[in-house]
Amino acid sequence: MTETNKQMLLASRPTGWVQESNFKLVETPIPEIADGQVLVRNHWLSLDPYMRGRMNDTKSYAAPVNLGDVMIGGTAGEVVQSKHPNYKVGDKVVGMLGWQHYGVSDGTQLMKVDDSRIPLSAYLGTVGMPGVTAWIGLMDICQPKSGETVVVTAASGAVGSVVGQLAKMKGCRAVGIAGGPEKCRYVVDELGFDACVDYKAGNLWKDIKEATPKGIDCLFENVGGEIFDTLLGRMNAFSRITLCGLIAQYNTEPYPMKNIGSVLVNRIRMEGFIVSERMERWPTALKELGQGVATGKIKYRETVAEGLENAPKAFIGLLKGANLGKQLVKLI
Amino acid sequence: MTETNKQMLLASRPTGWVQESNFKLVETPIPEIADGQVLVRNHWLSLDPYMRGRMNDTKSYAAPVNLGDVMIGGTAGEVVQSKHPNYKVGDKVVGMLGWQHYGVSDGTQLMKVDDSRIPLSAYLGTVGMPGVTAWIGLMDICQPKSGETVVVTAASGAVGSVVGQLAKMKGCRAVGIAGGPEKCRYVVDELGFDACVDYKAGNLWKDIKEATPKGIDCLFENVGGEIFDTLLGRMNAFSRITLCGLIAQYNTEPYPMKNIGSVLVNRIRMEGFIVSERMERWPTALKELGQGVATGKIKYRETVAEGLENAPKAFIGLLKGANLGKQLVKLI
Repeated sequence: MTETNKQMLLASRPTGWVQESNFKLVETPIPEIADGQVLVRNHWLSLDPYMRGRMNDTKSYAAPVNLGDVMIGGTAGEVVQSKHPNYKVGDKVVGMLGWQHYGVSDGTQLMKVDDSRIPLSAYLGTVGMPGVTAWIGLMDICQPKSGETVVVTAASGAVGSVVGQLAKMKGCRAVGIAGGPEKCRYVVDELGFDACVDYKAGNLWKDIKEATPKGIDCLFENVGGEIFDTLLGRMNAFSRITLCGLIAQYNTEPYPMKNIGSVLVNRIRMEGFIVSERMERWPTALKELGQGVATGKIKYRETVAEGLENAPKAFIGLLKGANLGKQLVKLI
Repeated sequence: MTETNKQMLLASRPTGWVQESNFKLVETPIPEIADGQVLVRNHWLSLDPYMRGRMNDTKSYAAPVNLGDVMIGGTAGEVVQSKHPNYKVGDKVVGMLGWQHYGVSDGTQLMKVDDSRIPLSAYLGTVGMPGVTAWIGLMDICQPKSGETVVVTAASGAVGSVVGQLAKMKGCRAVGIAGGPEKCRYVVDELGFDACVDYKAGNLWKDIKEATPKGIDCLFENVGGEIFDTLLGRMNAFSRITLCGLIAQYNTEPYPMKNIGSVLVNRIRMEGFIVSERMERWPTALKELGQGVATGKIKYRETVAEGLENAPKAFIGLLKGANLGKQLVKLI
């Protein structure tokens, strides 16, 4: 092979908003594999909000990416060399091989997938980590019952879009919060939510109230900040909050929350979770999500950036809500 | 009887801090009882933070006290007349008969108690609603395991003092937060907590860190505000928060919380609860608490105001943290 590997490294740590200059694109030789390893050519790179946390050098649930290392990330691609008994050339695989064209794996966290009925890229979205995040956060933490009202923020995103559709399947009223009329139209017209509140429209409390005439029983929170604080004021007695993300404050100072008292007054159960710590639930979730996608019952969209060199810009866009549906980078 | 009933009415609703002028003391005839009723002479009135909420005319989990009505409250006293088959004159009873000398009951929410081994007043504190609040909030929501660190705010109060002692019985490290050196000495020297942080000492974060070298696994939160926000920064992965009270903001604007992100990063489960909604747990809790008090294993103190006329001042003191242990009013 005369081709080289392209890799996107973490060049510096952001202070506040991520800049393109925090990344550095390099070309390196394609790695040699040893016995028990496979070489994968990545076709798709997943961009996800959690990556922002890994750019910081602070104690969190996961170690930060070291300066000069390849940025971590979920990938979907094809085995191009194999010295591992379980993988052969041509196998389609999903893994955590990072922001690069080629990755080496010993099979750990590498999953063979069937792209005959489900497109390969969907394994990074609805039938992958974001979809499972939606499934576990809704089913195991929120535990919605038929007739209840489920609200999800970042409703047009990779996680939120699945939350609302699963809520509808459970017989709930699904209400999305999203930024702008285009996203809200998508959420209601294409995904089938009952209502969507455009938080940019300037009538947040009034619009939330109208969209949730019976209050909120389950809140699936991806955003945080003023939206979260406002939604807290609309929670019902014995309601549940899945705290999945706080993207509004990943690049800024935290918003000063004033409605925590609602947790007490309304006897709310609020819980944070990390999807990778609940691996025992993945098979059930993936089965349901895969069937939903294969049969067209669960819909999704993708926003695709072309080429690794455009990954930083796309990632910054994701953090600002520029994407609609799953944000991907096409690497081939 | 030539004696009259003395009653403390809600005269006006407070804006901000409660004033003595929000109450009005009146004398009324001692009520006549009908068949199936008992007349109780209250010996003790319990003062509790939740009463502040009932003075507001806002939607909450319980209806507000109407203007001109007797203030609600837990009481312990003696049956002085009975037309009810289950009660006889001389029975000691605990109930919700309000801020007054005499109350009438049909037996609903009226419990006969034995004051031979446990003082009558304790049934309003450690062997009553505050003790059960501590027990349920710790055992059912926090669910501490031996070796874990349990932190409780308002540690010298009626609820907090029980939380710490129960935590010690479970083999936990018990750390209290209290206001001033006297309360902290009481919490450590008399109640047997491992440590106490004086939040008035001016080194909140540093002192909390020192008192919790292994972080916090269970937080039993009674206070809210800056203390709660600071403690959030010290929570461990998979820790639990029992949200029991937010007394710091009952009379003021809510404190702007900045550390809610800790719930996500540390996968915290936080839950609000109301003790009266978990009646199925009271018998178990009361049995353990009663044995603890009768055998001297659970210690407590009381701050006693003399006479119904001093109840408003004592209540305002309670809201400002002037009491040590259970705040009572002696009515006889």
